[in-house]
Amino acid sequence: MLRLLACLLMSTALAPFLAAEDGYRLWLRYDPLPETVRSDYAAAFTEIVTPANPSPTVALARDELARGLGGLLGSTVPTATQASRPHALVLGRPNDPAIAALIRESDLRAAGEEGFILRRLATPDGPRTYLVANRDIGLLYGAFALLRHVQARQPLAALDRVESPRIQRRLLNHWDDLDGFVERGYAGFSLWQWFHLPGEIDPRYREYARALASVGLNGAVLTNVNANAVILTPPYLEKVAALARTFRPYGIRVYLPARFSAPIEIGGLKTADPLDAGVAAWWRAKADEIYRLIPDFGGFIVKANSEGQPGPQDYGRTHADGANMLADALSPHRGIVMWRAFVYSPDNATDRVKQAWDEFAPLDGSFRQNVVVQIKNGPLDFMPREPFSPLFGGMPRTRLALELQVTQEYLGQSVQLAYLAPMWKEVLDADTYAAGPGSTVARVVDGSLRLQNLSVIAGVANTGTDRNWTGHVLAQANWYAYGRLAWDHALSSEQIADEWIRLTFGADPEVVATLSRMLLTSRETVVNYSMPLGLHHIMAVGHHYGPGPWVANLPRADWTSVYYHRADEGGIGFDRTPTGSNALEQYAGPWRELWGNVATVPENLLLWFHRVPWDHRMKSGRTLWDELCLRYQQGVDEVRALQRDWASLAGKIDAERHAHVTTRLARQERDAREWRDACLLYFQTFSKRPLPPGVEAPAHDLAHYKSIRLRYMPGNPGGG
Amino acid sequence: MLRLLACLLMSTALAPFLAAEDGYRLWLRYDPLPETVRSDYAAAFTEIVTPANPSPTVALARDELARGLGGLLGSTVPTATQASRPHALVLGRPNDPAIAALIRESDLRAAGEEGFILRRLATPDGPRTYLVANRDIGLLYGAFALLRHVQARQPLAALDRVESPRIQRRLLNHWDDLDGFVERGYAGFSLWQWFHLPGEIDPRYREYARALASVGLNGAVLTNVNANAVILTPPYLEKVAALARTFRPYGIRVYLPARFSAPIEIGGLKTADPLDAGVAAWWRAKADEIYRLIPDFGGFIVKANSEGQPGPQDYGRTHADGANMLADALSPHRGIVMWRAFVYSPDNATDRVKQAWDEFAPLDGSFRQNVVVQIKNGPLDFMPREPFSPLFGGMPRTRLALELQVTQEYLGQSVQLAYLAPMWKEVLDADTYAAGPGSTVARVVDGSLRLQNLSVIAGVANTGTDRNWTGHVLAQANWYAYGRLAWDHALSSEQIADEWIRLTFGADPEVVATLSRMLLTSRETVVNYSMPLGLHHIMAVGHHYGPGPWVANLPRADWTSVYYHRADEGGIGFDRTPTGSNALEQYAGPWRELWGNVATVPENLLLWFHRVPWDHRMKSGRTLWDELCLRYQQGVDEVRALQRDWASLAGKIDAERHAHVTTRLARQERDAREWRDACLLYFQTFSKRPLPPGVEAPAHDLAHYKSIRLRYMPGNPGGG
Repeated sequence: MLRLLACLLMSTALAPFLAAEDGYRLWLRYDPLPETVRSDYAAAFTEIVTPANPSPTVALARDELARGLGGLLGSTVPTATQASRPHALVLGRPNDPAIAALIRESDLRAAGEEGFILRRLATPDGPRTYLVANRDIGLLYGAFALLRHVQARQPLAALDRVESPRIQRRLLNHWDDLDGFVERGYAGFSLWQWFHLPGEIDPRYREYARALASVGLNGAVLTNVNANAVILTPPYLEKVAALARTFRPYGIRVYLPARFSAPIEIGGLKTADPLDAGVAAWWRAKADEIYRLIPDFGGFIVKANSEGQPGPQDYGRTHADGANMLADALSPHRGIVMWRAFVYSPDNATDRVKQAWDEFAPLDGSFRQNVVVQIKNGPLDFMPREPFSPLFGGMPRTRLALELQVTQEYLGQSVQLAYLAPMWKEVLDADTYAAGPGSTVARVVDGSLRLQNLSVIAGVANTGTDRNWTGHVLAQANWYAYGRLAWDHALSSEQIADEWIRLTFGADPEVVATLSRMLLTSRETVVNYSMPLGLHHIMAVGHHYGPGPWVANLPRADWTSVYYHRADEGGIGFDRTPTGSNALEQYAGPWRELWGNVATVPENLLLWFHRVPWDHRMKSGRTLWDELCLRYQQGVDEVRALQRDWASLAGKIDAERHAHVTTRLARQERDAREWRDACLLYFQTFSKRPLPPGVEAPAHDLAHYKSIRLRYMPGNPGGG
Repeated sequence: MLRLLACLLMSTALAPFLAAEDGYRLWLRYDPLPETVRSDYAAAFTEIVTPANPSPTVALARDELARGLGGLLGSTVPTATQASRPHALVLGRPNDPAIAALIRESDLRAAGEEGFILRRLATPDGPRTYLVANRDIGLLYGAFALLRHVQARQPLAALDRVESPRIQRRLLNHWDDLDGFVERGYAGFSLWQWFHLPGEIDPRYREYARALASVGLNGAVLTNVNANAVILTPPYLEKVAALARTFRPYGIRVYLPARFSAPIEIGGLKTADPLDAGVAAWWRAKADEIYRLIPDFGGFIVKANSEGQPGPQDYGRTHADGANMLADALSPHRGIVMWRAFVYSPDNATDRVKQAWDEFAPLDGSFRQNVVVQIKNGPLDFMPREPFSPLFGGMPRTRLALELQVTQEYLGQSVQLAYLAPMWKEVLDADTYAAGPGSTVARVVDGSLRLQNLSVIAGVANTGTDRNWTGHVLAQANWYAYGRLAWDHALSSEQIADEWIRLTFGADPEVVATLSRMLLTSRETVVNYSMPLGLHHIMAVGHHYGPGPWVANLPRADWTSVYYHRADEGGIGFDRTPTGSNALEQYAGPWRELWGNVATVPENLLLWFHRVPWDHRMKSGRTLWDELCLRYQQGVDEVRALQRDWASLAGKIDAERHAHVTTRLARQERDAREWRDACLLYFQTFSKRPLPPGVEAPAHDLAHYKSIRLRYMPGNPGGG
């Protein structure tokens, strides 16, 4: 065998395949450690011991460790069912008395249902590493954690960790349509090959599940919240079941969107009224049918009465009526309903950011125990920056899930670099004051604030069929960071970036330092050149890619840009204080005070909460107009800094990934200039002021930018 | 470096990537030859000599040889600009006097513009291999030919070959839409990432071009004949130009579909009348614009006045008026127009298979010299079996192109195995008798029948983003075979299958023999279980995947199945003799005689030309009904034979590709049963006869088969 491999090696033909750095391997590379650090680890892991007849999940843990340690250490680490050497790595559960004797009861309690214990112990047979969990899935999570530990080159001697996830259901939400398009997907097409399912299991499904498990994600909503009832028909449920079987050993449950009108569309009923007995019976039967095929089915997500989707209000019922009817169908099977709060009424003249509160806050306490209301991080729609959604502080008697968008709909899609962990940390760490200071969104969501029995976090996936999974190879960091934060929202953005870089690009200190800086500044950079100072929703219509501050005259005012920036000769910004829409009233007192005062509101939310004149004096001493211009310029300058940083890594990163990112950064620089020029030229028609020194002159006139029409954009089906 | 590679090798982590047999490498694998045969070749190729400062194309030839020989021989073959060792492999053109002195003038003439000479010669410096061509592209084609020669383990001693393509323009036609869908594409989505072009060149574009060049294809129509004028707008032409630049060193020109109404849709004109001076001027300016960006642009393909596409008839003009106007716009740049004859009138009561003739034959002689009329192999539409299109014999004064469908729209798409070379050979070898016996379609198309100055062949591509390029890994054989036949239509199906198998799966005699048998019988198998005995167009509506003999009542009669099979209690079949539609009159006398007589017509075309009673006596002595039933059963049995054959190769083919094909064959067997049961149950409602012994009883009743509804099928955009 080695001889054959040696032959292969000699072959120049194989070199391109050997070397293909196309991003497919994600953060699970396991390339050999430098020899200088390898020997300690090699000595510490002489064999991998698992119980005989392991479950599929334990076998995955064992195989991942064998593959990972074998790769990192450059030599095979044998597996065994009995420890026979010193320095064995032993995987086990406390039902093995030998294991139970070594592990503290308190640690087992702390590890809980999904967690693990990693401990290096001296035993009569020499030092050993123990990976212990109450359930098999904990062993798989622990295996990935141990491999991260080794790749981070952390010492083993003091290895003594107990980990468990803070949130129970850690989901990716796929907005994949049945025809293969991914709404707001920028990395190719859907991973799910419905036509070939259930008979054919694409090997990539397992790689997908492995990637999810490696960051601790344990659920996937397979198709779009803009739902298609066909997914609930028997042929498609067979296909879903095949995916569920494939994902199960990785600890991943599948969930589906429930189109509220499905009883009519595929059930032959005349109504979908949630209080109609026939409708409720239909859903109960549908749930029973699903659970016969998929015993661990997770539940339904519902987008109802929002952006044209059907819902209970079509029948004069409330969101709670709809959610509870579905919840009752699922509860015999322990399934849950994730009911989205992303709702704004087609005939509501109120400030759109207030409407979710208006719809949902009054329903607090009326949802079943197996319903979570799923709330986007901000009250509008995944903008580059929004304040946290006030609903997190407004429904104390309701289980609330946090929905984040991993795919970069409004942050440059797969072209622009935007590491989103800092944005997500803003909302996780935001204090709702709902039960006094320290009532962070994270504690609302993870249930610790009120000891909830059900906690959910959702991330809208950025994955697709692109070979590198996420379109932009650096966007893999967002998938990774989402998973890590879902597992432990106390991790810092810096810590996650550092981890991901080491796993994905290696431990060269210059690579780590430079790429960390790039990642950590990147989101604010996008904010600066697109929607600085609290501006929001001024992007191009439909595809949401470039600038469109002039967008007006759409069927709904709150789909336009002018609705949000309200620029005229008198000034710019949306007054959400009591003199305006008073959206501010939905927040707790400390926020009303801080944000309500134009003198104390952080400048990065100034125009979200206030309408101010163009010569409003900023903290810098500059006028608002000058500050705005300089922020846009700063965004462009920062992209150029990203380019310089990345260029400095040439030779330290493989040529293929380096060239890929170089190309995308070049486009990002062009796009940033377009944002700057388009927005400043447009706003200048109101401000009537010159661009201040330091701001580059626009390359074209405003008419040029307004004439740009991007067609057939990824992620925007039907956008011809 | 070697040490690093050795390290990598030790890593078990890399093993899965090393071993990934996902089909991505196509027939260009270059895995090491067995040592027993390797040494002769190793001795024969000691270095690769190319002129200094090679053109990009020559550099590609050199690099391909270095990669290929290096891989096959298991050691690096050095490159040089001067031969310094015996057994050098020397690439050159006759402008080098040293080369010219060695090569016969007649061979250079025979090699022509694109061909090459491969010759082993004794020289004062020892034996050398010469690869000589008049133009650089010939060296690239020769490099691939030499690598095939080595992989086929042919002796080198007598190497003395002159090759040149028989057809000048050998095109793949991509039916790719701008949103990424591929109409009738079953291998994922479009390879062209329009959003990221022109700035970003996906490495896969080069692999695509390399694959085309390796089989001698030299052109690609990038987008769908159901055309979108947006491809002709400036931003898209920039993108097309970037692809053209990428493909150019591989000898590949790009072509585009021209939507006839483009002057209105993107030009702002009020008409697209081809005789309108403004329209002609618009197309001239558009052609000039294209050639400024793409100096070697190939030309336009046009689907006009067909299936809803706009065309000259909208203005009362002829196809010739339309084609000639475009041809005049292109001719200053030596571009061509490929005008499709796939035309049937929306308001024509004639037998549809007659209509292309009716439309085009009268126009013979009225097309410009740079127009080819592009004709599908048969008069209907890529059925599993059709007679050749009579138009090939009916337009002696017009340049005619042959359009083949590599993608298996009506032959099981990417699920079912159907090696199409035998089908294509049927039409290529068919004698039109247009200039006496021997006037084969091949000779009409390659121009040799009348010494035409322009020859074109087109294959509708089966490529897509699937990692294995063609969805079904064995469907790669169709891409390969199409290219090889386009280069040399005299190659036999057997020869091409043998070549492809050796390149793709190695030279194990059992693999070669078994897989050859599978490939060579596979198309007839599909005919047997889907449309035997001359049946045609009885597939499901829209997606065209499964059976639909009951399809009726569509907006057009000639879109239905009942229009074509005409089954009733009296019999089945379409009378195309003088007692019926007399489509037969479009063929030459010998065919009219042979096919017009129910006693002499080959049974595989019986129901294409004749309507016969259910108890019509077949050559076997059986009734038509019994024969039909047994043919359907035979098709199913043959799929099971394919399964057994393939199973017998387990262990001789890598596990990954073996499992993939096993899965698809299992589905094919199920599909074949569905075809058989659905068609026989349906036809039985007319024949009122029992299934003869040997035919398996249907698993379900007819209502079941009629109720099957496949949604969101690949290749059928909008088919929800």
